Amino acid sequence: MARVVVNVMPKPEILDPQGKAVTGALKRMGHTGFSVRQGKRFEIEVDKDVTDEVLDEVRQFAESFLANTVIENFEVVS
Amino acid sequence: MARVVVNVMPKPEILDPQGKAVTGALKRMGHTGFSVRQGKRFEIEVDKDVTDEVLDEVRQFAESFLANTVIENFEVVS
Repeated sequence: MARVVVNVMPKPEILDPQGKAVTGALKRMGHTGFSVRQGKRFEIEVDKDVTDEVLDEVRQFAESFLANTVIENFEVVS
Repeated sequence: MARVVVNVMPKPEILDPQGKAVTGALKRMGHTGFSVRQGKRFEIEVDKDVTDEVLDEVRQFAESFLANTVIENFEVVS
């Protein structure tokens, strides 16, 4: 059982209200000097070997389905 | 400007409806052999050096604030 991770983050030029809320809350709690952006992490168990073809398949459905590439970037980590 | 990442994932014994929905949708799209769990990724910019004290601070607010440790595990990656 192999694992591939897909990280999806809001693009740098896109406002990130969740991250802004977390940053503000941390400040109010006395944790200064932190700026947070919030995204998604997908942990994908693969029931076969992680070949280049499988990684291409993951990249393809990450782009079309896991991330909204208008506003989000993604990376596939194996 | 240094960066610390906090990954928050549903505990293995906890149902993950978002991950289940993604897994089901992938199957229906013809992508078989994948099992997905969905969590959160926080990218934290730190405006000072990432010392052990800063990492301890991040670990502390990750535990009390970014993750719900009843149902989620977290890891701090620097």
